[in-house]
Amino acid sequence: MYDPRYASHHLAGGQALALPAATEDFESHFYDQTLDHFNYLPESYVTFRQRYVVNSKHWGGPGAPIFAYLGAEAPLTHNFSAAGSFLIDIAPSFNALLLYIEHRYYGDSIPFGSREEVFGNSSMLGYMNSQQAIADYAEIILHIKDQFNASDSPVIVVGGSYGGMLATWFRLKYPHLAIGALASSAPILYFDDITPQDAYLNAVTKDFRDASETCYQTIKKSWAEIDEIASKPDGLSTLARKFKTCAPLKDSTSLTDQLEGLYASAAQYNAPPSYPVTQVCTAIDGPGPNNDTLGRIFAGVVAYYGKKPCYINKPTQPTETYGGWDWQTCSEMVMPMGYGNDTMFGSKGAFNLTEFSNECRKKYGVAPRPHWVTTYYGGHSIKRILKRFGSNIIFSNGLKDPYSRGGVLENISDSIHAIYTANGSHCLDLGASNVTDPEWLIAQRKEEIHIVHGWLTTYYKDLQAV
Amino acid sequence: MYDPRYASHHLAGGQALALPAATEDFESHFYDQTLDHFNYLPESYVTFRQRYVVNSKHWGGPGAPIFAYLGAEAPLTHNFSAAGSFLIDIAPSFNALLLYIEHRYYGDSIPFGSREEVFGNSSMLGYMNSQQAIADYAEIILHIKDQFNASDSPVIVVGGSYGGMLATWFRLKYPHLAIGALASSAPILYFDDITPQDAYLNAVTKDFRDASETCYQTIKKSWAEIDEIASKPDGLSTLARKFKTCAPLKDSTSLTDQLEGLYASAAQYNAPPSYPVTQVCTAIDGPGPNNDTLGRIFAGVVAYYGKKPCYINKPTQPTETYGGWDWQTCSEMVMPMGYGNDTMFGSKGAFNLTEFSNECRKKYGVAPRPHWVTTYYGGHSIKRILKRFGSNIIFSNGLKDPYSRGGVLENISDSIHAIYTANGSHCLDLGASNVTDPEWLIAQRKEEIHIVHGWLTTYYKDLQAV
Repeated sequence: MYDPRYASHHLAGGQALALPAATEDFESHFYDQTLDHFNYLPESYVTFRQRYVVNSKHWGGPGAPIFAYLGAEAPLTHNFSAAGSFLIDIAPSFNALLLYIEHRYYGDSIPFGSREEVFGNSSMLGYMNSQQAIADYAEIILHIKDQFNASDSPVIVVGGSYGGMLATWFRLKYPHLAIGALASSAPILYFDDITPQDAYLNAVTKDFRDASETCYQTIKKSWAEIDEIASKPDGLSTLARKFKTCAPLKDSTSLTDQLEGLYASAAQYNAPPSYPVTQVCTAIDGPGPNNDTLGRIFAGVVAYYGKKPCYINKPTQPTETYGGWDWQTCSEMVMPMGYGNDTMFGSKGAFNLTEFSNECRKKYGVAPRPHWVTTYYGGHSIKRILKRFGSNIIFSNGLKDPYSRGGVLENISDSIHAIYTANGSHCLDLGASNVTDPEWLIAQRKEEIHIVHGWLTTYYKDLQAV
Repeated sequence: MYDPRYASHHLAGGQALALPAATEDFESHFYDQTLDHFNYLPESYVTFRQRYVVNSKHWGGPGAPIFAYLGAEAPLTHNFSAAGSFLIDIAPSFNALLLYIEHRYYGDSIPFGSREEVFGNSSMLGYMNSQQAIADYAEIILHIKDQFNASDSPVIVVGGSYGGMLATWFRLKYPHLAIGALASSAPILYFDDITPQDAYLNAVTKDFRDASETCYQTIKKSWAEIDEIASKPDGLSTLARKFKTCAPLKDSTSLTDQLEGLYASAAQYNAPPSYPVTQVCTAIDGPGPNNDTLGRIFAGVVAYYGKKPCYINKPTQPTETYGGWDWQTCSEMVMPMGYGNDTMFGSKGAFNLTEFSNECRKKYGVAPRPHWVTTYYGGHSIKRILKRFGSNIIFSNGLKDPYSRGGVLENISDSIHAIYTANGSHCLDLGASNVTDPEWLIAQRKEEIHIVHGWLTTYYKDLQAV
């Protein structure tokens, strides 16, 4: 069975961009957050310490804007040192206060004590979901406005990937607390049957095929070769030697899963200036020491990771993101992802909701609610719905990012914009600007800034009119 | 201390209009509803039977509109036999399906078995709130669309009073499930400090003063007389005789509370053709057998209730509405209501949040969250916010209704309308049309119908354009 976690865990931005870390201008705080915003049971009133970080260096004071970066499925430090860098770049020109809020159950914002305890107990995990998370953000934004005497300060919420979904949903659910949202690479339509379940892997395939037809062909035929070798006596050892694995292979899946993950990751983060898909394909296509298919595939692996003592099956600790997102996809964030007929991955089966649900029930003791996201947030017929409702959202995407297939790629109204680049990758626009940035990336960011300026101008005009 | 329940329990429409009861065209059903939509705890998955009623007699079939009446703090039967009658009147001309949904924890939709058990246990009561309620409505609306093959049918949500708040909030939170909302007498601004806490009783006072200056003066001075008599030996017996009470008075408050309740109720439901405020004031002003102040007040009581063997302190079972709404105001729906300086009720003190919270904690073991409604739904600066966000809401009010003071009384945008009548009362427009209806009421309903027609026209145009 296809396990959608394989693809969807990349949502987190597993490949963190190497960007400036926090400086002393960032102050870390904790807010006593309500565990359960939506019930009035005695246990709903439990509080936990939720981390947020403020940078007021460039803030223009009461009335000046607040940019609120909504944390996603990772510790906050990761978020604001990587994808949040765009905000650091633009804060001075907006005289903006920067606020970064950590998502509940990640980093230093874990209710009920230790991660280990929490993740072994569905009675503790059950409060970890997007609705509680954006309610947390609502409370902290009000708290900040209060602390900074900033009741008239317009708030723009910003997020990438899952955080971009949160930014979109925050603007839709709490329009009184945020005047607009910048949602980068937010696949808000990758739920139910809105987006074809094989769209993600189709897009990965397209990225490779666009880079090189021969590279695509090599990858496409590699799976059968791996299976063939694996089926022979000592075949797994042969594969382990060929791929210089760090530990013996128990089955061929442990190899193919990691290759798939590599290709997906290369496509999702196919960012300038290095463009990993091109790097991998150049190696696959190039004249290697071995000219056979698997030798080429291995050359691609080396190109991706760089020279290492060993490559596949490296023993690693699962990240917070991996564990946290696994729960989230197994409860609320059910993103149906499977193989189709047109991918380079072979025909390994479509997404099977029943099997998926059973797996989740086995792991966590509770079943997913696969239709709740579209019930609560919508998604179906989004163009028709949001044409007449809502305003001030930017959906930014890069089409090289396979998640863009579940994003909004058409303008919906005068103030609900789709801004995408043909060559952009996952959350690229939220990263720090760089001398190597191509023109199209500079233009995308410029357009985003221009639109946000427009929102602020209208906001201040409305405020004065009162 | 002022107890806001006194006023706010009238929200329910305690004075049910005598209107046609359900006929055989109404089919009652039950939906297996999720107890807790917002968490993934093992207990969140408990289901309960939620009642809804469908009338498809006039429905035009798939694609034709659905009017969804959102139940409020009363059993459903009450709702659709009273305030929902407007929908029965207009269903034929719209070819509309009628759907009435019972609010969780009322009528036949009580989780965990009996009312008695539930209301004695905050661990069972804690799921009773507006957010869970509108999530219930979302699920049932989707269920109905599925059952009736009506995915393209536009849904208009309708509600009165608290139900009108729910309709407003449903449109704002679930725009993908309802294309518009008719919110009658919905005091969505009677939270936090948005509306002055004495606005309700000021409006009651104005209604009486507008009806008769002498009546207002008589009521105004009656409180001191009651207190004076009550302070004498045997004073309570004297009062009991004067007011023909059904049981002895334990204190003067049990008399004054009921008089206040009578005046508030008369004002709130000051509907044509009888206009209770006028009736009460005519009696108070009239030449009675007794010409003293309390004799006049008693004449008002008799005019209001009609000739009865006894009047005040009648032993009654508390209604479902009373008990349910008491919990709701003590947890989520904290509507700050108190006395001011300009009322005919004397100066009995402002709303005191601390005292109120302590009382609630004592009664239910959990404290209210007085700012959550405005955090989740908004309310502050509503004109500025909704001018640029949202669409298709009708806020209808009658200014004789003291709750109109917490309603929206100005148009907000091209499609967010305030329609009020100077002489209308609480939820009057949602009642059945009647030969005695005054012109202004006919005109109000006509305007509402016209606007809803406009929404539908636009909806079908958008649908065809896809």
